[in-house]
Amino acid sequence: MSTTAKPPRRTAFFLSDRTGITVEMLGHSLLSQFENAEFEEITLPYLDTREKALATVRQIDERAKLDDGRPLVFSTFVNPEIRFVLDSANALHLDCFSIFIAQIEAELGIHSSPTVGLSHRAQDSIGQHRRIEAIKYTLEHDDGISQRNWLRADIILVGVSRTGKTPTCLYLALQYGIYAANYPFIPEDFNRMALPAQLKNVRSRLFGFTIDPLRLHRMRKERRPNSEYASVKNCQHEVREAEILMRREGIPYLDATSKSIEELATALLHEAKLERKVY
Amino acid sequence: MSTTAKPPRRTAFFLSDRTGITVEMLGHSLLSQFENAEFEEITLPYLDTREKALATVRQIDERAKLDDGRPLVFSTFVNPEIRFVLDSANALHLDCFSIFIAQIEAELGIHSSPTVGLSHRAQDSIGQHRRIEAIKYTLEHDDGISQRNWLRADIILVGVSRTGKTPTCLYLALQYGIYAANYPFIPEDFNRMALPAQLKNVRSRLFGFTIDPLRLHRMRKERRPNSEYASVKNCQHEVREAEILMRREGIPYLDATSKSIEELATALLHEAKLERKVY
Repeated sequence: MSTTAKPPRRTAFFLSDRTGITVEMLGHSLLSQFENAEFEEITLPYLDTREKALATVRQIDERAKLDDGRPLVFSTFVNPEIRFVLDSANALHLDCFSIFIAQIEAELGIHSSPTVGLSHRAQDSIGQHRRIEAIKYTLEHDDGISQRNWLRADIILVGVSRTGKTPTCLYLALQYGIYAANYPFIPEDFNRMALPAQLKNVRSRLFGFTIDPLRLHRMRKERRPNSEYASVKNCQHEVREAEILMRREGIPYLDATSKSIEELATALLHEAKLERKVY
Repeated sequence: MSTTAKPPRRTAFFLSDRTGITVEMLGHSLLSQFENAEFEEITLPYLDTREKALATVRQIDERAKLDDGRPLVFSTFVNPEIRFVLDSANALHLDCFSIFIAQIEAELGIHSSPTVGLSHRAQDSIGQHRRIEAIKYTLEHDDGISQRNWLRADIILVGVSRTGKTPTCLYLALQYGIYAANYPFIPEDFNRMALPAQLKNVRSRLFGFTIDPLRLHRMRKERRPNSEYASVKNCQHEVREAEILMRREGIPYLDATSKSIEELATALLHEAKLERKVY
């Protein structure tokens, strides 16, 4: 194994007989461990017939001819026949299901029931329903626009505007069915250095985001250039006041600077000890 | 391998030194292939020190004593030292990274750069920015409330209310950074049997959802029981009119009945040929 002068460039295929969401995420994670290589990623879902599988083999073989090296193929096929067809492609084929399924079968002493795509299926209608209700709740309780039902919230995010509260709430609702509300601090909160009365009743569900003031300034500037709102001075002031307020009220908070939506959501689930149920 | 009378019950751990989102999704997918077994799923993210890893080993060993059989442990550890610690637990330990990383290294002829958690990291600030902007756009163009910027949309979902347009749009924005707007048909659209003028200019980006009228009735009834809106007769009428309108206007549509949010999003990406870029 040696480091070549030119970084390797390959095509990566993420293949599945269902949505391909799992294999796409896993394959992308794996490839992100190779910073010194470049990949063109192609997801092909619903490869559920022999004909589609054969067409995909041809597509992969074409790529193998055009690229420097043969493609990397990641797959999660539930149907072994489709998997076998893909094995004939000119590629490194890594099936991310079969290898583990065999070991789990041996461990449990039972056969798997290869029902295609159970994981992302509406069969789990309770989970689906819960997630849709959580999204509805989260949309209705975004940005403090409604204060109708704080008590129903699993968590209420607070912080100055543009710290990532809305995307994080939506992620929690969509992925985990969590009822996530949010409330952006306003100048009145700082003036009286106290929470609004309605929030005091749900203090145990409050969690705060803070952020580096200069980063906040850059983000706000993009939306509203040359505004007092986006000025460095105002951003520094708001962040400082928000942190004082959160400490005074005993609200746990974390620094959202340079964290992705997934990292913010995970940190919240973890630190606020919310149930992390996969649907 | 034999089928036992009593279904196996095990605890399943999803472990990671970062967010755990990838391993949680893959592990859950794998376990969903075992319909005849029951699993309690526990996700533990951020196991990034030897101390945390050792505490997790103790937690797993406790479970092994309490449960019928030893736990199943799925992991995506970037740090091999943490992985080795977990190998000492009384469990079937399936690391979902190492097995593939080795094969990719051999294929590419380079070593991986084990930077923890690159996949869900804000380092990819372009992707993060794109997703946040897409969420903002999608929220502003949900439910036809704004018609300010249809031209910016990558896709505009149409259909009667309660067919899953909003959750699907949010999923597309959050996961793939797609600018997804939606427009619910209103009685006026059916009366004149034509699209609103603003939508005619963006016809190539329109995609429709339809649904089984009885399913629609059940869902609407929950939100607004005993309403004309939720009545079987009205649901049948709206669905019929919407399908006629979509066919007349040449809008491709799919049946959203009993599809999950992920399935709807995937079908859309696929059929509308939208770029499916993983962030």
